[in-house]
Amino acid sequence: MASSMDNLPDSGQTLDTFMQACRKRISSCLAENLQQSADDARLVDALNYACMGGGKRIRATLVYASALAVEAELSLADVPACAVELIHCYSLVHDDLPAMDDDDLRRGKPSLHKAFDEATAILVGDGLQCLAFELLSNEDYQAEQSGKLQMLAILARAIGNRGMVGGQFKDFSLTGKTASLAELESMHQMKTGALIRASVTLGALTRPHIDKQDLKALNLYADRLGLAFQVQDDVLDVISDTETLGKPQGSDQAKDKPTYVELLGLKQAQDKAISLASAAQESLSQFGPAADQLRHMAAYIVSRNY
Amino acid sequence: MASSMDNLPDSGQTLDTFMQACRKRISSCLAENLQQSADDARLVDALNYACMGGGKRIRATLVYASALAVEAELSLADVPACAVELIHCYSLVHDDLPAMDDDDLRRGKPSLHKAFDEATAILVGDGLQCLAFELLSNEDYQAEQSGKLQMLAILARAIGNRGMVGGQFKDFSLTGKTASLAELESMHQMKTGALIRASVTLGALTRPHIDKQDLKALNLYADRLGLAFQVQDDVLDVISDTETLGKPQGSDQAKDKPTYVELLGLKQAQDKAISLASAAQESLSQFGPAADQLRHMAAYIVSRNY
Repeated sequence: MASSMDNLPDSGQTLDTFMQACRKRISSCLAENLQQSADDARLVDALNYACMGGGKRIRATLVYASALAVEAELSLADVPACAVELIHCYSLVHDDLPAMDDDDLRRGKPSLHKAFDEATAILVGDGLQCLAFELLSNEDYQAEQSGKLQMLAILARAIGNRGMVGGQFKDFSLTGKTASLAELESMHQMKTGALIRASVTLGALTRPHIDKQDLKALNLYADRLGLAFQVQDDVLDVISDTETLGKPQGSDQAKDKPTYVELLGLKQAQDKAISLASAAQESLSQFGPAADQLRHMAAYIVSRNY
Repeated sequence: MASSMDNLPDSGQTLDTFMQACRKRISSCLAENLQQSADDARLVDALNYACMGGGKRIRATLVYASALAVEAELSLADVPACAVELIHCYSLVHDDLPAMDDDDLRRGKPSLHKAFDEATAILVGDGLQCLAFELLSNEDYQAEQSGKLQMLAILARAIGNRGMVGGQFKDFSLTGKTASLAELESMHQMKTGALIRASVTLGALTRPHIDKQDLKALNLYADRLGLAFQVQDDVLDVISDTETLGKPQGSDQAKDKPTYVELLGLKQAQDKAISLASAAQESLSQFGPAADQLRHMAAYIVSRNY
């Protein structure tokens, strides 16, 4: 997919260069797979609208960074990187629906159901979820069979009724209520943490017979990173402006959703994010420089301003 | 799952007894998997509401009938049978949404978004789709790895942007327009035919190293059966009453959707359904009595009155 002239994702790059290389690589993979997935031109347009409107591609980048950490063949990371981004995009499209979070803006542009219509948004979300599983199970994907099945099982569990879907459901049941820190953490672990963890695990599983201790360390890294990511999201909802954020500032507060900032105060929430990011880095102590991009990602997650 | 006292699905049973045995078996598998899939009691309720409200379980029954036809181990058919029913139920929940077909009744009861709410209906559909892939990829499912991957790939393709989702999208674009017979057939082949075909294929794939000619014959059977099913659905929408149908009679006409009855007239549509069912039976000529339930199913599909 990427030619030899491309700047391939590499563990020795600066994080900026690395993230840019990952974004470029994943954008080209996504565009190709979306184009091939449907015949109807309007459906292809809507699928592209859902997936190709920018975004930081953090989950795909984590797949690549994790594959580098275990010294796997990078080309085997393309499919799982696509899969986690497709899932992320599907979740955004459905979350934005009027019956869900009712968000008219996404990444500074009209949400899919505003740009198209609600029926299209429901179907596009459904189709993107399905496409993630299609790519991972496709015989064209050259990872070994047991690794593919593990990836499929882990991804499905991460985004199901005990993962992303369950977390979104819990989110609704907590809205307008006073949640405990434990409830908030459990909700976020399911709603966003599980997919972030799956991204790191899928990247590692591109390596055949991955060492169990390595996998355990990477999962610990991912759990801490996922939590840091969510705390920082809550911080940004308060301190960042609408233009930088691409969605209305203070929108979580406005929806009466419980946040870390509300429970801990701004300063303590910021401290918590930073200490979680450090803990994430510490869980990688058994890895050499191959895991540097994962280390950089942890620092990035809590220093980003959108 | 089923005890030795149960009346197991068998190729020598009358179709009634066979369908009853399949329904019993699939209901118990579904109930167990739904219960295990989520922690939140209200989410479990909603998942059960979506899947346990009756229904003929035609897709699951086709999985069992196809597994019998290729003389596979019946217990290996439970997971794919669950998977296709989960997908069918997810599609009904999403199709009924106000932004989609806006149906308040399903199987004579309030649709899920009426009994719960729209956000729950969106999430339940998402979770059911995911659960189908989770069950098939789960290491607890004892089919051989290459068979599992094939099932996953075939199911994903059948319900994706060139299958069920694409067919639903096409359905919307044809609504209110004069469709040709070819357009109508292509829409139905994607919207409902692809999952029916996948049900038959998944059943056959429970047999390791399935014979390619057998698979080809089964796919031809399934294509004809799927089309017969849809033509009969259009016929029933016109001739059956609301109580028997479990949804408003004439609802397709009322929505200005193109139908076979509209394009061909009632008598010719009925004839078409019957001749497709015969053709489906003929495609099974290389099979012995093991395929009898598939033959019975073809006759049943066009004689059912709801």
